[in-house]
Amino acid sequence: MANSIWKSYPQLGEKLDLTTEFIHQQVKINNLEISSMIVDLTSGGKMLRPAFFLLFSEFGEEKKTTQELIPLAASLEILHVATLIHDDVIDDSPLRRSKPTLHTKYGSRNAIYAGDYLFTLYFELISKNLESNTDILRNALSMKKILIGELDQMLINFNVESTTEMYFKEISGKTAELFSLSATMGAVVSGGSQELIERCKKIGHNIGMAFQIIDDILDFGNSSQIGKPVHEDLKNGVYSLPYILGLEAGNKELIEILSKNSLNSEDDSRATNIIVDEGYLNKAKDIAKKYTDQAVSEIDELPENSSQRALKAIIKRLVNRIK
Amino acid sequence: MANSIWKSYPQLGEKLDLTTEFIHQQVKINNLEISSMIVDLTSGGKMLRPAFFLLFSEFGEEKKTTQELIPLAASLEILHVATLIHDDVIDDSPLRRSKPTLHTKYGSRNAIYAGDYLFTLYFELISKNLESNTDILRNALSMKKILIGELDQMLINFNVESTTEMYFKEISGKTAELFSLSATMGAVVSGGSQELIERCKKIGHNIGMAFQIIDDILDFGNSSQIGKPVHEDLKNGVYSLPYILGLEAGNKELIEILSKNSLNSEDDSRATNIIVDEGYLNKAKDIAKKYTDQAVSEIDELPENSSQRALKAIIKRLVNRIK
Repeated sequence: MANSIWKSYPQLGEKLDLTTEFIHQQVKINNLEISSMIVDLTSGGKMLRPAFFLLFSEFGEEKKTTQELIPLAASLEILHVATLIHDDVIDDSPLRRSKPTLHTKYGSRNAIYAGDYLFTLYFELISKNLESNTDILRNALSMKKILIGELDQMLINFNVESTTEMYFKEISGKTAELFSLSATMGAVVSGGSQELIERCKKIGHNIGMAFQIIDDILDFGNSSQIGKPVHEDLKNGVYSLPYILGLEAGNKELIEILSKNSLNSEDDSRATNIIVDEGYLNKAKDIAKKYTDQAVSEIDELPENSSQRALKAIIKRLVNRIK
Repeated sequence: MANSIWKSYPQLGEKLDLTTEFIHQQVKINNLEISSMIVDLTSGGKMLRPAFFLLFSEFGEEKKTTQELIPLAASLEILHVATLIHDDVIDDSPLRRSKPTLHTKYGSRNAIYAGDYLFTLYFELISKNLESNTDILRNALSMKKILIGELDQMLINFNVESTTEMYFKEISGKTAELFSLSATMGAVVSGGSQELIERCKKIGHNIGMAFQIIDDILDFGNSSQIGKPVHEDLKNGVYSLPYILGLEAGNKELIEILSKNSLNSEDDSRATNIIVDEGYLNKAKDIAKKYTDQAVSEIDELPENSSQRALKAIIKRLVNRIK
């Protein structure tokens, strides 16, 4: 059953259920244990990327059948889950969606290979289902950008001279690229004009940027609760936008704290106070709002239909989470 | 400069140098440190897979230019290096080609993403350079088989009831698939008939099977030298062919040793003696020879030319290493 966030959109929810079913058929491999962990990982999630793809496929001239759309919708979720599995190995996260992560249960070896396997599945699906030698296939392969974003993050980690420019570049690859691809792919398969495709690409990018920043802000909120352990990302030198804003503003106390070799919970709460009191948190919220506002005003230019209305409602709900 | 194993084949060596150059142009990314580690990893290796691809591209009716062949030759080496990087993270190997491994120098995080990045580069190159919707593109994507082979290995690890059937199935995916793909791709791009393509596929498979078994035998030789630490694979429950033959034959002493929770060097040398004295090592050598003999007799059926002679010579040298 599709995630409850889609309950106001029963037709979309139905297509997402079919997408999940399709994914489960694809990941059947000999190794039943790993197969069933992948099935778990692709069940009950929000499926934002397939959902955006399906919504954006309603704006072009050509009406595609659900059967034609499902494999592409599935490919986007498969790519997303592949990156989640590798991310969990990298961060050594014990849980994902309240269940033990794949590497915790079967070791890093099998988790890395399972991720690689899903990458392959993604490429197989798009090369079978997208017309070849088109810009969109090249675009889909530009998953390279996502990985370059991840590798660029190395340049930011533990770097108290990190700037918002570096941060935006990084999340533009790491997160926004896949949202942008989902939107663009929708426009392309529905036979959209070049103008429409460009617009959808921008909208996807802006939604993705907003999504990552909102995630950063929510994470910050969780970490600043009393009694919580030192924020994991902060300990690993991964600075989210509120911290980057403080560092870029040259806040001496914050730079001093983050320059320490290891952070204890007192350091963490001192840093938290700076972020809130000096207004860096609010500034991050403003930036998230700027991206969603941009997305909404571009969506207003799309053909008017139920997908257009759904997109606006979803984005509104997204940004309301940080109010 | 191409690896010295190609010094008798100057034309091939030259094409391999161009392939290396092409790879280095492709892997240029922002992150100069990681970029230069990838350059290192793709320099001076044997480049067996591109070499086989180039040799097998001489048997069809169409003569392709070097320029047309290089990107595909490069893609095969890039895929190989991607798997090496992930394998090194998985095995936590400190060195590769006498240099620190990528994960040792930049952490598992960057090594996993660097491998993912190379996978993407591979898919990008083949989808740009192979005609779409052909069997060969689907075949190239059947890299899935390689990963399913890796995941199947989990079923063999620490399993003293492992059989040669399980082992052959596993290495057929893990190693032989990429050799088979290299040979098939060569036959296809040179416009070979279906019969030729099928033959090259079989030859590639047999070479790959022989290659892995010979590697197993050489590894066994290294591990059985006096003063060497307990063989790493054995400690990790990864049984190579000589051990599998002993287990399958139901050798009670061997089963007893390998069933222990942890192995010391005395266990290792006892197991080594069993493998040698009971003839399991020689049996493994016979099996390797069977695969190379099969490959050679199929190569005899290929059109006679300098590539055909080169293939036979290379295979002969391969099997001579275990004499």
